[in-house]
Amino acid sequence: MPKTQIAIIGAGPAGLLLGQLLHKAGIDNVILERQTAEYVLGRIRAGILEQVTVDLMDEAGIGARLHREGVVHHAIELVFRGERHPIDVDRLTGGKVVTAYGQTELTRDLMEARQAAGLPTVYEAADVSLHGFDGDKPLLRYRHGGQEHELHCDFIAGCDGFHGVSRATVQDHVTEYEKVYPFGWLGVLADVPPVSPHAIVYGNSERGFSLCSMRSLTRSRYYVQCPVDDRVQDWPDDRFWDELKRRVDPHLADNIITGPSIEKSIAPLRSFVAEPMRFGRLFLAGDAAHIVPPTGAKGLNLAASDVKYLSSAFIEHYRERSAAGLDHYSDRALHRVWKAERFSWWLTTLMHSFPDMGAFNQKLQEAELEYLVHSEAASTALAENYVGLPL
Amino acid sequence: MPKTQIAIIGAGPAGLLLGQLLHKAGIDNVILERQTAEYVLGRIRAGILEQVTVDLMDEAGIGARLHREGVVHHAIELVFRGERHPIDVDRLTGGKVVTAYGQTELTRDLMEARQAAGLPTVYEAADVSLHGFDGDKPLLRYRHGGQEHELHCDFIAGCDGFHGVSRATVQDHVTEYEKVYPFGWLGVLADVPPVSPHAIVYGNSERGFSLCSMRSLTRSRYYVQCPVDDRVQDWPDDRFWDELKRRVDPHLADNIITGPSIEKSIAPLRSFVAEPMRFGRLFLAGDAAHIVPPTGAKGLNLAASDVKYLSSAFIEHYRERSAAGLDHYSDRALHRVWKAERFSWWLTTLMHSFPDMGAFNQKLQEAELEYLVHSEAASTALAENYVGLPL
Repeated sequence: MPKTQIAIIGAGPAGLLLGQLLHKAGIDNVILERQTAEYVLGRIRAGILEQVTVDLMDEAGIGARLHREGVVHHAIELVFRGERHPIDVDRLTGGKVVTAYGQTELTRDLMEARQAAGLPTVYEAADVSLHGFDGDKPLLRYRHGGQEHELHCDFIAGCDGFHGVSRATVQDHVTEYEKVYPFGWLGVLADVPPVSPHAIVYGNSERGFSLCSMRSLTRSRYYVQCPVDDRVQDWPDDRFWDELKRRVDPHLADNIITGPSIEKSIAPLRSFVAEPMRFGRLFLAGDAAHIVPPTGAKGLNLAASDVKYLSSAFIEHYRERSAAGLDHYSDRALHRVWKAERFSWWLTTLMHSFPDMGAFNQKLQEAELEYLVHSEAASTALAENYVGLPL
Repeated sequence: MPKTQIAIIGAGPAGLLLGQLLHKAGIDNVILERQTAEYVLGRIRAGILEQVTVDLMDEAGIGARLHREGVVHHAIELVFRGERHPIDVDRLTGGKVVTAYGQTELTRDLMEARQAAGLPTVYEAADVSLHGFDGDKPLLRYRHGGQEHELHCDFIAGCDGFHGVSRATVQDHVTEYEKVYPFGWLGVLADVPPVSPHAIVYGNSERGFSLCSMRSLTRSRYYVQCPVDDRVQDWPDDRFWDELKRRVDPHLADNIITGPSIEKSIAPLRSFVAEPMRFGRLFLAGDAAHIVPPTGAKGLNLAASDVKYLSSAFIEHYRERSAAGLDHYSDRALHRVWKAERFSWWLTTLMHSFPDMGAFNQKLQEAELEYLVHSEAASTALAENYVGLPL
């Protein structure tokens, strides 16, 4: 009868990072993933890592390439009324920074480390179902290679994202909090040098939000706010670049190097939290439990902090026979989640045009941006959230 | 032909303070007021003075009673989830404080000083109308004592509040920004010692906002958020005290000393800005140009900073023959106004229950309050706004 200590559902960054940290601590784990490895690697997602996340990669022993290829950002920039305003995050937080490193790259590092360690990952595991987590003998059933399988375990970690089976299984016992925003982000990936290689540029304009970011010194990631029901085919590359340039300051616009998009997609923006994050021997982590709008770059980093709390709790359980970490997991994780939800909502609300915002709220946005860039205290509050609040 | 240098419409704190500062600088002024002096003094309004406002009273030479009877507050308190959290405003701002001193008292000091100086104030001036401010010979017409009068002047200062004639006269040339909140404040004034004599207490609860403030060590001013269409007769004193106690922490509730209300009223909450604040030789100041919800205690203080800018501009004009101050008045005043509007809106949104807020926004409020009281940077941002941003 196949058995492991921790059965992990989902081979995204949350599941892979958890597996790696548990393995380092001598705890057996198996990952079941619905998709192929190639599919998982093809998903274009976030690219800004908090120090907490970088530290976790180091703790997992796989930070080498990240440190080599990741680009440290000491600042961010806010553009409004056509002018750039740097926020010196490094100085304001007493030396904290973020690192630009694509989620795809981080996932690749984790996959390679898992493979090198010979840890079991079942890709294309179909129809995963969760059983017995209310008692003390949890069990996963799934189909793979045309056969039915069972995996017995001590605990289940649901790292299978917003649409995964883990939260769906406990749907009736979850309180959900949700906000859907009335716009989307049109994102373009292009192999051109980023216009701002040292700082992400957040743009507020009457035409809508824009974001100039990067995956590396030769690969840029740009976004413009768009109606949520626009289709990618409405946005040929030329239209995208024109629109982007109209939303930033003139000097920046002149320096944007354009090129053919290698990926282009429209994503909706959502805030979502499911409470609690523990159900007997089932623990949710990352997008399975919460979603933030991408504005604050918090999604991947929240998954990492969940994994930090959860791996510590499992280690405590096995090494010290203490249930304290497991018992506190949900509260600890949610405490940080809600602060990041607050920050992501705030930055989203501050930077975007809302269809129904009206003239008063538009003036308020400008007043808040004006205050923000001129107040040391307000800039510091932004900076300390951006680099990640303490664990 | 009666003539003065500055004709001031409105004998509230803005008009009176302006008159006093001009008089100190040797500039003639006449105030026209629609109501009686007793009526003006009977209006119960704000009671928290920024340092900027206290300094202006000193500059006007009438700060003595304020310093004697005003109660300096070094902190404010936030109550949420039934717990009190002090914000040490003094420490966070490097020594700045606010002073509790009723607007009624401040108005009385100003009236007495004006009377002592023998400066002309026309109470019960009816049907005031503004003429010629587009050119260089402005003129006010009004009725008083059954007769028609004219007052010629160099400039007109419209200090006659939200419902006054000044802004109404230029209505077609004004851009208005407005937000009306879906609730009101029920306020009670009572001659009982305040429950928190050293710090205003702002309460967030599922039942709605509450505020424990004071006018002196023997006179308290308390508020609870209520439906905007409630009537005062819906709220006998007992109901008010019961509701207030249910919205603060239990220890505070136990210590509230109740007593018969000597004033009770329900006020709507509104954010409003009119742009610009100058029209030729007519200048708006205070509530005539802008309204804030009372949550941040900014209304009176914004009137004072308008008056500071405006009196300086008039003095510059007469002493140095320079139009610079007058030309910049509107921009300078509005710059500060919008920051105070932003702060007042933010604190209002953070602390009140909104009928349509939903579970997600309620959780966000708690997350923001939690972040606010634990982050030095966020607490400092609150504190620096509360004591008043620099002129």
